[in-house]
Amino acid sequence: MNLIDDKTNSQAHGWQRLATDYPYTFRMFRVRRDQARWPDGRVRTFSYVETAGAVWVVPATADGQVVLIRQFRYMLDDWQWEVPAGGFHDFTGDPVELAKHELEEEVGGSSDNWLYVGSFNTGASTFEELAHIVLARGVRLDRQPRREPAEIIEVHLVPIERALEIARSGEMTDGHSALALLRCEPYLIGVAE
Amino acid sequence: MNLIDDKTNSQAHGWQRLATDYPYTFRMFRVRRDQARWPDGRVRTFSYVETAGAVWVVPATADGQVVLIRQFRYMLDDWQWEVPAGGFHDFTGDPVELAKHELEEEVGGSSDNWLYVGSFNTGASTFEELAHIVLARGVRLDRQPRREPAEIIEVHLVPIERALEIARSGEMTDGHSALALLRCEPYLIGVAE
Repeated sequence: MNLIDDKTNSQAHGWQRLATDYPYTFRMFRVRRDQARWPDGRVRTFSYVETAGAVWVVPATADGQVVLIRQFRYMLDDWQWEVPAGGFHDFTGDPVELAKHELEEEVGGSSDNWLYVGSFNTGASTFEELAHIVLARGVRLDRQPRREPAEIIEVHLVPIERALEIARSGEMTDGHSALALLRCEPYLIGVAE
Repeated sequence: MNLIDDKTNSQAHGWQRLATDYPYTFRMFRVRRDQARWPDGRVRTFSYVETAGAVWVVPATADGQVVLIRQFRYMLDDWQWEVPAGGFHDFTGDPVELAKHELEEEVGGSSDNWLYVGSFNTGASTFEELAHIVLARGVRLDRQPRREPAEIIEVHLVPIERALEIARSGEMTDGHSALALLRCEPYLIGVAE
């Protein structure tokens, strides 16, 4: 979120960006406010939230389990199933490097087998964040987690088929973690050594 | 997003909310800023974005196709594959009613067979939005779309297996649409009459 996106393609669809400012900034996001001429010719505000992007890590062990976490979230005021994840707001490096960092920090995991699976947008009209999916295979829980003050985390080893079921059924209420797991499904079949 | 969430459960995990204000409000979201004592005892700001929630509609026709859209998004400055969706920021009613409204407005579709599939959170630390998934079966494209000024939309009928592949492969870059489709997979098998 370091450059002003100039909406070059939008111009071809009747949009014209007139001005941009950032009325609110927090450590993990900022609010962008564009004054723009909309396709119907009227000038309106288009405001949305930008982040620096984030990564979701799907960690699979050699014996066919996925390392899921139950995390307590202040924002939600509740626990939920997730996979390890973290943002680029305080990290410099590529998605696989951030994935390695988060796997070690949140669950004490390490791996020598990393695969960048792909990305998705976590919003289309209000929240602009590019989410990266990274798969780690042959994961070992051989490190000491180094959790941040807000990270209240339980680690659970769950058989792959059950982890996919938790994602598909909605028992995993965290949408990004669920999608990361389901996007990894083709790579998880037969992952056990 | 009409009530202050008092973080009752968070108190049991060492959080204490001290004050809340809303430093920025737009039509579709507002920024919430809590002053809170964190589990490590320090007082910090915890800021995040709240919306009124939204619904994603998976529309399937009687002949085994999914009604996907390609939508041009100003925020992304690009086109992407999506399913019809809309927010509660300017709608009063339940998720199925909003789904009916969006299906007609965005693609001119109607159905007599609606199923509320479930929900997910679209964020865990920065963006609080409850996303509902609604499946419509036996969909007919028999109405006139009534699109809003920013809605630049192409309608595509895609065979169910191909739609699921677009979601699973990441070709559908919209994460919420992809998850909605994959969560509906068990209900889409054998949908053709």
